[in-house]
Amino acid sequence: MLRLIYANTLDSDAHYAVKTANISSFFYLEKNKQKLAFLDRREFGLIPKGTGVKSILVEKFLASAKKLKFQTSGRNKLAYVIFKEYRLFGKKVEVPAHFPLDMADFLRKNGAKLVPTYPFFPERAIKSKPEIGFIKESLKHTRGAFGIIEKILANSKIKGSRIYYENKMLTSEYLKQEAEKALIEKGMFDLLGMIISTGEQTTTPHHDGTGPILPHRPIVCDIFPRHRKSGYYADMTRTYVKGKPDSKLEKMHVAVFKAQRAATSKIRAGISAAEVYQAAADSILRSGFDVGETGFLHGLGHGVGLDIHEAPSLKATSKDILEAGNIITVEPGLYYPEIGGIRIEDMVLVTKKSCQNLTNYPKKLVIP
Amino acid sequence: MLRLIYANTLDSDAHYAVKTANISSFFYLEKNKQKLAFLDRREFGLIPKGTGVKSILVEKFLASAKKLKFQTSGRNKLAYVIFKEYRLFGKKVEVPAHFPLDMADFLRKNGAKLVPTYPFFPERAIKSKPEIGFIKESLKHTRGAFGIIEKILANSKIKGSRIYYENKMLTSEYLKQEAEKALIEKGMFDLLGMIISTGEQTTTPHHDGTGPILPHRPIVCDIFPRHRKSGYYADMTRTYVKGKPDSKLEKMHVAVFKAQRAATSKIRAGISAAEVYQAAADSILRSGFDVGETGFLHGLGHGVGLDIHEAPSLKATSKDILEAGNIITVEPGLYYPEIGGIRIEDMVLVTKKSCQNLTNYPKKLVIP
Repeated sequence: MLRLIYANTLDSDAHYAVKTANISSFFYLEKNKQKLAFLDRREFGLIPKGTGVKSILVEKFLASAKKLKFQTSGRNKLAYVIFKEYRLFGKKVEVPAHFPLDMADFLRKNGAKLVPTYPFFPERAIKSKPEIGFIKESLKHTRGAFGIIEKILANSKIKGSRIYYENKMLTSEYLKQEAEKALIEKGMFDLLGMIISTGEQTTTPHHDGTGPILPHRPIVCDIFPRHRKSGYYADMTRTYVKGKPDSKLEKMHVAVFKAQRAATSKIRAGISAAEVYQAAADSILRSGFDVGETGFLHGLGHGVGLDIHEAPSLKATSKDILEAGNIITVEPGLYYPEIGGIRIEDMVLVTKKSCQNLTNYPKKLVIP
Repeated sequence: MLRLIYANTLDSDAHYAVKTANISSFFYLEKNKQKLAFLDRREFGLIPKGTGVKSILVEKFLASAKKLKFQTSGRNKLAYVIFKEYRLFGKKVEVPAHFPLDMADFLRKNGAKLVPTYPFFPERAIKSKPEIGFIKESLKHTRGAFGIIEKILANSKIKGSRIYYENKMLTSEYLKQEAEKALIEKGMFDLLGMIISTGEQTTTPHHDGTGPILPHRPIVCDIFPRHRKSGYYADMTRTYVKGKPDSKLEKMHVAVFKAQRAATSKIRAGISAAEVYQAAADSILRSGFDVGETGFLHGLGHGVGLDIHEAPSLKATSKDILEAGNIITVEPGLYYPEIGGIRIEDMVLVTKKSCQNLTNYPKKLVIP
């Protein structure tokens, strides 16, 4: 089998291939069990030997590429030279689903047979022991960030319609900053932008939050940082209220908690992801809330690894079957325009007969 | 003209289109001067009105997509429904060069005429007033991070072959952490991973650096953070020596400084980027150093905006002509295995008759 990637290592497949962070866009080729990375002088030697990947200095190919007469980009010419050199034209070459279209068009015009393939590395859905270790580490540091947030909220004071911490008005921006600093000290970074939203903002599940944190209203904290070196994400959500929540909000929190428990208790290798979603949805309905356009209006969860969203997918229409070694989020939520949003998110490792909660962190709503 | 994007807003074209950060993968369509973003309930309302982009709730299309019988992904089905609804099949539709290949294959099989286009928004190379303001702001915060690094180095003590700061051994990791924390307090984030390398590591221009900072050896600091909200990058490099540099290293620093000045003095609207590169290369040769496989072994610079590397490109083979409003880096470097690397990088705004240095920061090598 022939497999080719052209991407930088922020791309999860490229990172998975070379098990190294911080490499600019490069070609990666698997041919006859050989794994080759084509790096230029600026980055040659960055891929460690233990990965089984051989680094090839790309400069000699660049010289041939420059002589080509095609009216196309330098990277396309380089691709052409690699296809010639490794006799890839005419043979089926698997590429990621998001392989650059202009390069594909150019290569195909010259006889390449590219097969976009998703998932490109299906084995990524089953986490190895080192990968489980990396994700546990990312989660540990993420819990640390939640600890900081809870501490700030606990040591804040409500004055009228605002909250004050160390005599300054508490904002979403400040909480994010402190959480992010805690993460950075542990080698994590917030690639995708965490959510710390409050009040009406929490009604939009992906509103990242801005401005003053409101007392007596929900504060949704959804933090999903990536480890700078290992590349693995954690994903965790808690919802807090500083002060006294509305009684409906309290009921929503209980309902979301129960839905999470109902779903989690179903999880084991062999169960369908849709069935796990349905367990959460049924629980939400039993608690007297809605599923669909309002209420529980999104999926239940997703795999996490070198991508924040990867296989398997836990939604109503999913065809995925859970397998031992999947690491997935379980994150039911409820959202009502008048009241706000509640979401609780844990990560679990699917095992043969059940699952193991890797997040292991309290789910208190109220911070007095 | 019809233009279509499918990406999240970490993608520079997607961000440019909707002038908003933190939106997950979505479809963006330009048709008859209408600009449409197809967002789901989780993100609906995130794009401000002033952008001229109309948000369309995607859920109704999702319902039609689910009914389609194609054996393909949900996002491909959604693309199909949008192509049907907006009568895009059979018409030329420009898409970014990195448009997902599997989606392109699927749409073309059903009659789409996709034209991968790079640059997708050529106007991005000419920065508007607000964009210049965003980049200046990002640079200001980046200078702040360099201030922190210099302060730590100045207040450190050399003991034998190591450097100590507040009685702890100074490492690349610590300097990165402190620089990153300073950036985060200003709303910046380090998406791509800064370089703080030392000693032998500096010989590899993109080695991101690790372990103890070495006295009397070069410390290359290349910091290129992105502003979380505006999306604009800054890019800046300084090389330091804590202690006493080798005399050849000092000569290299002077040569790089002169090469930068030689190149910068050439910059104006209408000059070819290759000519500016050549001015730096000639200066390096005049100083008695090498250009090519060793010495000055990379390009001179690149445009910076919503991408860290964008048009124009300042290298020997570039065909770009500089235009007023380009914002580019000027970053000559010298690298020798026995001695290490030196790189100095400023950003300049190209004007009609010359250029304006936006970085405006000292270039001292030695920190005693």
